[in-house]
Amino acid sequence: MIAKTIRTPYYAVIFSSIRSEEDSGYAEMADEMIELAHSQPGFLGVESARNELGITVSYWESIDAIKKWQEHPAHKIAQQRGKEDWYKKYAVRICKVDSDYFFEK
Amino acid sequence: MIAKTIRTPYYAVIFSSIRSEEDSGYAEMADEMIELAHSQPGFLGVESARNELGITVSYWESIDAIKKWQEHPAHKIAQQRGKEDWYKKYAVRICKVDSDYFFEK
Repeated sequence: MIAKTIRTPYYAVIFSSIRSEEDSGYAEMADEMIELAHSQPGFLGVESARNELGITVSYWESIDAIKKWQEHPAHKIAQQRGKEDWYKKYAVRICKVDSDYFFEK
Repeated sequence: MIAKTIRTPYYAVIFSSIRSEEDSGYAEMADEMIELAHSQPGFLGVESARNELGITVSYWESIDAIKKWQEHPAHKIAQQRGKEDWYKKYAVRICKVDSDYFFEK
């Protein structure tokens, strides 16, 4: 699903990752984090795709909303497990979306 | 592959898309555009993943480099064919990357 976002400017977190072999608990935690993100103040939407590389982009009303989400206790635990177990490599990029364009047939 | 980018700030184009049933010429054009992007001034890297939703994020040194790429004649033709044939729906978001964080095990 393409996220329905608000008028620019808004903010995005691009999370690009390569998984490890370790699968235990990953799918449950990923689902739980997506669900929890939806209930955070300032959350606008999320888009996700994975082949060898996974890309998850979440959209937010403000940088402050992103900071709060990154500091959320349950999210902190997930981040820690991510580093220890689930990811070989990742990048997190925090962006301001200055313009957007939507096409639908 | 996670893109190797420069020190922030730099810029990103998030292209999120849902494909149509029409496949003719798509893979060739997609490969060609990725190759062409690599040779553009200011191009830093690209990340891509697709399930039902496809996400391609390209990274650039400046907004000007993004504008030039969007106006590149071969890219314009690809965009036109994309609208006519290959995509049901898409979003293009142009962002300034203000901070990033990399993890590698």
